[in-house]
Amino acid sequence: MQSNLIDLLNYRYATKRMNGQIIPEAKVNNILQAIQLAPTSAGLQPFRVFVISDREKLKEISEKACQQPQILEGSHLLVFASWKELNEDAVNEYMNRIADTRGVPVESLDGFKGNLMGLTRRDQKENQQWAARQAYIALGIATVAAAEQGVDATPMEGFNPDAMDAVLGLEEMGLRSNVLLALGYRDEQNDYLLGAKKVRRSHDQLFTEI
Amino acid sequence: MQSNLIDLLNYRYATKRMNGQIIPEAKVNNILQAIQLAPTSAGLQPFRVFVISDREKLKEISEKACQQPQILEGSHLLVFASWKELNEDAVNEYMNRIADTRGVPVESLDGFKGNLMGLTRRDQKENQQWAARQAYIALGIATVAAAEQGVDATPMEGFNPDAMDAVLGLEEMGLRSNVLLALGYRDEQNDYLLGAKKVRRSHDQLFTEI
Repeated sequence: MQSNLIDLLNYRYATKRMNGQIIPEAKVNNILQAIQLAPTSAGLQPFRVFVISDREKLKEISEKACQQPQILEGSHLLVFASWKELNEDAVNEYMNRIADTRGVPVESLDGFKGNLMGLTRRDQKENQQWAARQAYIALGIATVAAAEQGVDATPMEGFNPDAMDAVLGLEEMGLRSNVLLALGYRDEQNDYLLGAKKVRRSHDQLFTEI
Repeated sequence: MQSNLIDLLNYRYATKRMNGQIIPEAKVNNILQAIQLAPTSAGLQPFRVFVISDREKLKEISEKACQQPQILEGSHLLVFASWKELNEDAVNEYMNRIADTRGVPVESLDGFKGNLMGLTRRDQKENQQWAARQAYIALGIATVAAAEQGVDATPMEGFNPDAMDAVLGLEEMGLRSNVLLALGYRDEQNDYLLGAKKVRRSHDQLFTEI
């Protein structure tokens, strides 16, 4: 079974050292487009992605929130920040957007709207976890998008979310930083992980077929 | 910027009705291979995926845990179930697997092991959320893998996780069901969502460039 995706997944790896080369804008935009098209629960896309290439801002992040070398050696840093709550305004905005995009009366969406309004009444801590998971769907697809563009991408959870939120002013926006994706190019001289065999659980360790 | 991935993301949609056609085994295996290769935090893959094609089991799931039509109209159902805790045994198993795969002494991994042992001492509720997020990375990549194989895939959170855990005996395995992926083929006659324009937040609504 031929598969370009499997090749891309084998090409990518958690790049530990990057070489400072800057990614052309068209490639970055392709990765962002893939994030935009990623599926999410009910299509709500409950997160925002900060796309940071300003060297001063990256330096500040490196000093205050994440000392991993990819922050400064990479070209762009993506910060996935999910909604701290799902509120009625967000659902109403979404309903209007569906109606606009599809040219249907917003009232025709009342059933769907009712379901989503139900989610707004859950414990907002649950919604926060739910929102973060949706960001991870987009994160995974972004790693594939990067590989397709010949760009390296390192997902990173090892950072201080409180400090990151402060640097980016996320709290005031009702956002919480979840995970980072450093984008850049592998440093072929200095990355000890380059060429290391991928380690994965076996089929039987990972899957149960019924 | 040419991109096969963007085409795949535009091809896929949350298929609401499927036509009962069975997916060839090679295509299913390709999707599972993509899941196996998906990146996860520290490479730990803290989940198991149940691949269910047995019609009796699907009927039981449909009756007890999820009444959405894709359960019975699809070909295979994937149940992503994440670890309820991260324990020392799992870290030790992983260290041995890295050493075996890469042909390095397990002692050379002591630094990495120490970091992961730190995670085992976090509140296990936090680890459970962390594990579920990793499953969502693989979920997203599986939707791309399916599209590449011309297979439709519907992620579903609308099910009863307690009932699902009971049907699959997950509690005894230390697992918790997180999300489903129904695999099958779109019912071109009866799926009201087929052909509906994709609704997404605009670039400015989703991204902040700094």
